[in-house]
Amino acid sequence: MREDNDQSDLSQTDLLDRADPTTEPQMNPDGTTEGDYELSRRDVASILYTVDTGDQQQLWTLLDPLHPADIADLLEQLNAYDRRRVVQLYGREFDGDILSELDEGLREEIISVLQPEVLVEAVRDLETDDVVDLVEDLDEPQQEVILDALEDADRVAVEQALSYPDGSAGRLMQREVVAAPEHWTVGNAIDFLRKSRDLPEQFYHIILVDPRMHPKGNVTLGKLMSSRRDVPLTDLVEEVFEVIPVTQDEADVAYAFNQYHLISAPVVDENDRLVGVITIDDAMIVLDEEHEEDILRLAGVADEASLSDSIWDAAKGRAVWLGVNLMTAILASLVIDMFSGTIDQMVALAVLMPIVASMGGNAGTQTMTVTVRALATRDLTAQNAMRVMLREVSVGVLNGALFGAIMAGVAVLWFGVPMLALVIGLAMLGTHVAAALGGIVIPMALDRANIDPALASGPFVTTVTDVVGFLAFLGLAAKVLL
Amino acid sequence: MREDNDQSDLSQTDLLDRADPTTEPQMNPDGTTEGDYELSRRDVASILYTVDTGDQQQLWTLLDPLHPADIADLLEQLNAYDRRRVVQLYGREFDGDILSELDEGLREEIISVLQPEVLVEAVRDLETDDVVDLVEDLDEPQQEVILDALEDADRVAVEQALSYPDGSAGRLMQREVVAAPEHWTVGNAIDFLRKSRDLPEQFYHIILVDPRMHPKGNVTLGKLMSSRRDVPLTDLVEEVFEVIPVTQDEADVAYAFNQYHLISAPVVDENDRLVGVITIDDAMIVLDEEHEEDILRLAGVADEASLSDSIWDAAKGRAVWLGVNLMTAILASLVIDMFSGTIDQMVALAVLMPIVASMGGNAGTQTMTVTVRALATRDLTAQNAMRVMLREVSVGVLNGALFGAIMAGVAVLWFGVPMLALVIGLAMLGTHVAAALGGIVIPMALDRANIDPALASGPFVTTVTDVVGFLAFLGLAAKVLL
Repeated sequence: MREDNDQSDLSQTDLLDRADPTTEPQMNPDGTTEGDYELSRRDVASILYTVDTGDQQQLWTLLDPLHPADIADLLEQLNAYDRRRVVQLYGREFDGDILSELDEGLREEIISVLQPEVLVEAVRDLETDDVVDLVEDLDEPQQEVILDALEDADRVAVEQALSYPDGSAGRLMQREVVAAPEHWTVGNAIDFLRKSRDLPEQFYHIILVDPRMHPKGNVTLGKLMSSRRDVPLTDLVEEVFEVIPVTQDEADVAYAFNQYHLISAPVVDENDRLVGVITIDDAMIVLDEEHEEDILRLAGVADEASLSDSIWDAAKGRAVWLGVNLMTAILASLVIDMFSGTIDQMVALAVLMPIVASMGGNAGTQTMTVTVRALATRDLTAQNAMRVMLREVSVGVLNGALFGAIMAGVAVLWFGVPMLALVIGLAMLGTHVAAALGGIVIPMALDRANIDPALASGPFVTTVTDVVGFLAFLGLAAKVLL
Repeated sequence: MREDNDQSDLSQTDLLDRADPTTEPQMNPDGTTEGDYELSRRDVASILYTVDTGDQQQLWTLLDPLHPADIADLLEQLNAYDRRRVVQLYGREFDGDILSELDEGLREEIISVLQPEVLVEAVRDLETDDVVDLVEDLDEPQQEVILDALEDADRVAVEQALSYPDGSAGRLMQREVVAAPEHWTVGNAIDFLRKSRDLPEQFYHIILVDPRMHPKGNVTLGKLMSSRRDVPLTDLVEEVFEVIPVTQDEADVAYAFNQYHLISAPVVDENDRLVGVITIDDAMIVLDEEHEEDILRLAGVADEASLSDSIWDAAKGRAVWLGVNLMTAILASLVIDMFSGTIDQMVALAVLMPIVASMGGNAGTQTMTVTVRALATRDLTAQNAMRVMLREVSVGVLNGALFGAIMAGVAVLWFGVPMLALVIGLAMLGTHVAAALGGIVIPMALDRANIDPALASGPFVTTVTDVVGFLAFLGLAAKVLL
């Protein structure tokens, strides 16, 4: 059990900096501030010092009050050499949950450092759904090591879970469920629970099932405890009840939990029979991962990029989208090349043209991001697509007119050529409209083609805005100015 | 209680399209596919048809099986005119939860459409924490209408919650808690729960408190039900136990729930006395909002942008960052202007220079996004900052060298000037390194200055990459080529 210590009681084992948020954040000697729930630099230093001295007892004392998630964070922040030393000195106290909490990129490294008997011990303590999460991304040989460490029943359970598709509800669910026949009363259920030896660690509902194991409703434990013994369970079922097919994509599962504020939901096989249960904490992790993926994909960074990736992996993950961007940039340069004669006659065009492209690119990214988010949250549908598109184009006209006018003024002041002002003003307006259209049509088209719009929209949208921007500006200039 | 209907039983009331994910997604007549949990176009059409005919009973039949969150989504997808008609015909069946689920931008609109007696009815059914969430963003007069609709006790509770800072744990928590003295046994607790008349709708833990109401531990209901009556509650407390200060920022609350896999956590006042409880479903909503904010801010879209914003609001929300971008673009153009003489002598420079800036901008955005995410998830700290910076610069050198070499080849083939190839190759390398440095140093500096890096990094990073890109390319060209 961990608790906030009083500020006055900052012993060496008080590793987590829990500044009282009503007071000023604590200041480190180097002037940085630490937020809540953050290991302080001082704490990390004392852990590393302990590793230097090789004092295992002291290391246990320091790490014992930490949550496995915090120990995992600590390991992620160390360099590989220190990480290895901490894990080795930590020895048999190493908790399996630390493995579950670790960044996927580091799991293999840590597993290879752990002594076999420590690994066996660590893995046996885990719930089977955590083992599934742990092994699914490991290489074959390491997978075998972990599976071999399990007891037979657990190994069968894990292998069964692994037989469901990657990223499906079947991988996410726990197989231990608390179910009761739908004709039972409160008294029957309470007696059953009190007699059970093997209830799951965490459960929130009793799932009512019919004789063919089809889930029929959820009863919360709170309702059960506060109702008379003779009340039928069917009188207590929750109003909101969602049943999850075992093959459903985990992103859809997370959406359902978020949309319907579910706490737990039964999972059924293709015959609608109860096979497991998914709880909100699992859904929250998926939601978090989906967001991470979206945000990184929008920026053209490969999935699951993390600070623990090697330099080489990180460079490769980003090179793909940089390569696509290079091609679109060359395409835009080909447009400029068409007008090299025009630029030759008026260098001011070369000076101003990046402004048009930059503004168009930014406006396009804005619309694209709003569109990608609206698609992810399912707020943008066939029903309102036309209306949203009209709205975005209107926004493009408004901002295009505003910034076109501003740039026209800047151009007159800068170069003193009124027609140049007209050209850049009109080009800005046109590019903003193109950005709005591209920013909404491209993600929607990709979504319909079942391509993740977060992943692929960026290059297309910037190609549109670059090409339209240069074409409009230099084309108009060629017509009007020369 | 709602359930998946069989595919064969698609009655008119089966509004939610629950395609069996093992089969192909259903195809609409217009060729679009519908995912799980999505209102189909057909369903919306039948609702609108019912509104046209003014058949209130039929509207109730159609909407009754829907979750309030789905009805809110439906309203969000209609235009303002249809929305008004649906709400008016829906009449007294309108559920207060629909208001809670609605996009903030639409709440005021719907509240002004609702008849006063319907509003009073709708609001009285809500839990007080939902009322708080509802009224905190409303204008003063509408706030009053809602507060006046509440019973006195609820009104006091809501006003007390509103006295905590916006976005604090105090706004998020529910005030109804289930607490027990720490010296109680399982039997005491069970008897207490069975006698209680007024238990909260949802609760997962009994909070153990000392005589001064300081929370000391959580006992899950599952453990309570499966333990003998004479077991002391202190023997059953959860290993992980976090106490949330009432003034803590909701983002930190969400972080704690996500990091420590909490289900519920007690909230304490400045004297560490229990004043409420926060549950994981509230934390999940906050986490979702934080992500949304991050993703939109990174793209330069104002917070809380949604498809329901008016054209005018949307244009304003985006104009701010477009204005900042215009200034940085002009700054970059000033750099180009310094070299207009150089460009005049070699137009190929004007053709190629946007490629250097575009690649630098993209590489910078990649690094910046990874950095902003790592700061948000607290994976980037004072401990590993130097290491991460070195890694990013190394990635910049690798990708800069790769794409510099590619562009050098392209430039030779295109313009046949070997020295131009050397210039663009070196400029690309330099810009990539600058992008890596800017992409990590700028967000970290903003974070230390307590400015949200997601909001402000973009303009700074692109300024760095544009200026360095143009300066390196044109400056080198002026030295080497002319």
